[in-house]
Amino acid sequence: MKKFINSVDSFLSESLAGFAAIHHDIVALGDTGTFVRRASKPNGKVALVSGGGSGHEPLHAGFVGKGMLDAACPGQVFTSPTPDQITAAASAVAGEKGVLFIVKNYAGDRMNFEMAAELHDGPTATIVTDDDVAVENSTWTTGRRGVAGTVIVEKIVGAAAEEGGSLESLKALGDEVNARTRSIGVALTSCTVPAAGKPTFALGEDEMEMGVGIHGEPGRRRVKLAPAKAIAAEMMAAVLEDLGKAGFNDGPVILLVNGFGGTPAVELYLMAAMARAELERRGLMIARAPVGSYVTSPEMAGVSLTVSAADERLLALWDAPVHTAALNWGH
Amino acid sequence: MKKFINSVDSFLSESLAGFAAIHHDIVALGDTGTFVRRASKPNGKVALVSGGGSGHEPLHAGFVGKGMLDAACPGQVFTSPTPDQITAAASAVAGEKGVLFIVKNYAGDRMNFEMAAELHDGPTATIVTDDDVAVENSTWTTGRRGVAGTVIVEKIVGAAAEEGGSLESLKALGDEVNARTRSIGVALTSCTVPAAGKPTFALGEDEMEMGVGIHGEPGRRRVKLAPAKAIAAEMMAAVLEDLGKAGFNDGPVILLVNGFGGTPAVELYLMAAMARAELERRGLMIARAPVGSYVTSPEMAGVSLTVSAADERLLALWDAPVHTAALNWGH
Repeated sequence: MKKFINSVDSFLSESLAGFAAIHHDIVALGDTGTFVRRASKPNGKVALVSGGGSGHEPLHAGFVGKGMLDAACPGQVFTSPTPDQITAAASAVAGEKGVLFIVKNYAGDRMNFEMAAELHDGPTATIVTDDDVAVENSTWTTGRRGVAGTVIVEKIVGAAAEEGGSLESLKALGDEVNARTRSIGVALTSCTVPAAGKPTFALGEDEMEMGVGIHGEPGRRRVKLAPAKAIAAEMMAAVLEDLGKAGFNDGPVILLVNGFGGTPAVELYLMAAMARAELERRGLMIARAPVGSYVTSPEMAGVSLTVSAADERLLALWDAPVHTAALNWGH
Repeated sequence: MKKFINSVDSFLSESLAGFAAIHHDIVALGDTGTFVRRASKPNGKVALVSGGGSGHEPLHAGFVGKGMLDAACPGQVFTSPTPDQITAAASAVAGEKGVLFIVKNYAGDRMNFEMAAELHDGPTATIVTDDDVAVENSTWTTGRRGVAGTVIVEKIVGAAAEEGGSLESLKALGDEVNARTRSIGVALTSCTVPAAGKPTFALGEDEMEMGVGIHGEPGRRRVKLAPAKAIAAEMMAAVLEDLGKAGFNDGPVILLVNGFGGTPAVELYLMAAMARAELERRGLMIARAPVGSYVTSPEMAGVSLTVSAADERLLALWDAPVHTAALNWGH
């Protein structure tokens, strides 16, 4: 393992301090040093708090700021934030309208956010994202995993919160966006957790893991590396079949082409071209198509494709101003 | 080599088509399909044209748009764009005020941009960037290499062009920013060129290349991997010593922490924290500090640190609105 690191113990706190110092116009470290919150607290809105294990940056701290989250709690790499970490964040940003937690569907995250919600003094609600169609149940998950679709939920619900939506309406909106959103990932190489110091799994020189999770969890099948066009076709078929079963058969859609971190932009745009062709072949209108490394896994080469069935209202919320480290427009 | 690719021959054109389709609100493919230009041509300004070998994305196509470049010419991976490719781009975006080329200091790039300037029918000027302090002369370079500091030149000159600056004044401004800017890079792993299919150079499991070039050119020395703090200290010492010799001994500065592509954001922010500490220890005021993967090398894990001695005028140009795929604010 080769990393820019001083020690495994100080790795995350030093990085988080760097992140907060660099983006001091947008975020600040919480008093406990264990969470990131907006640099200035907005008044009279529902507070959005997300979090989860580190290693997926810019998720979630990169999405704290106007138009998205109010706070994010990063755990150790691939480890859930603790309940006291979450309650500290929640109480730092909570107002009268309450706190909305956005939680990816992993057992540890759900348990700790649930405990935090019980401990928090004030109204709360929780959105659980589970957009990964690859597998039912997984290493750390009952049901489906929450992956890159979480970014779409955080953006759209964040915009609605900024407009003054109630806790109840935002919870319903987040659940709706999650229900309209499907993802699948593929890995060309493994991730490497700093504390472990070696790759999480082994892939042959000519193999890929189709349906991989963002922690390197097994996918649907390990197969020979295929041309990009064939990979995109298999991924889009999985996503669109599942969306279709839920009644979402036409556009407009948001297509999110997400790199796992180890994949160059030139390959992401090539995969974006292949994914677009698959959608267009089916007559689906692509309304928005963010391309970038938004939900990553340390050193993993790979990509995930997310399709979210949108409408005028959801696209307006997607387009609303946002000012965070990782998404920034219109403010 | 594992990449998302259909064939080595179609790799770049498919990716570029994807890039242009995804960012159709910002850019368009040129008629020849060999360059990227702004989606709508602005009137009455000097046209900024850059380019160079592919493999460094988002440089340069990711910086085409309002407030930065008018066109970018990507060559094959690590291969200069051809003179006819450059002249096609120049004539597509040229207006009465002329064309300003921004060229990184590599022999092939300089030669081909020079030929293009001779072929172009109209006034031209050229800024050559050579911000890399690691070595004098290199594999493909006489003098110093042009690396991540090029982004700062393109942003600042782009803003001044938008304000209506003349060809002569913009050329002088670009030369000035280049003279105020120094960079150095370090690699933890090699890059891999698709057409070659294997790593460009070999590094031991516990080694790093201090002073590496963005094409994997040799640096100053190959040494044992060190703690991040020590790496940052050596890099900042090299950069600041050289800046000091040129008379730039105090702030404010722009600190650019650039990932080579294979390095996770969490490590970039850790290096940003270490670099900040080095600057602060010397009493240098950090006015702006962009952190991201702006000038990359395929699959290379590593980072470069750039310091640009700024002043009020240069910071105002840095802050001016920009709307490109890779930099986007204030528009």
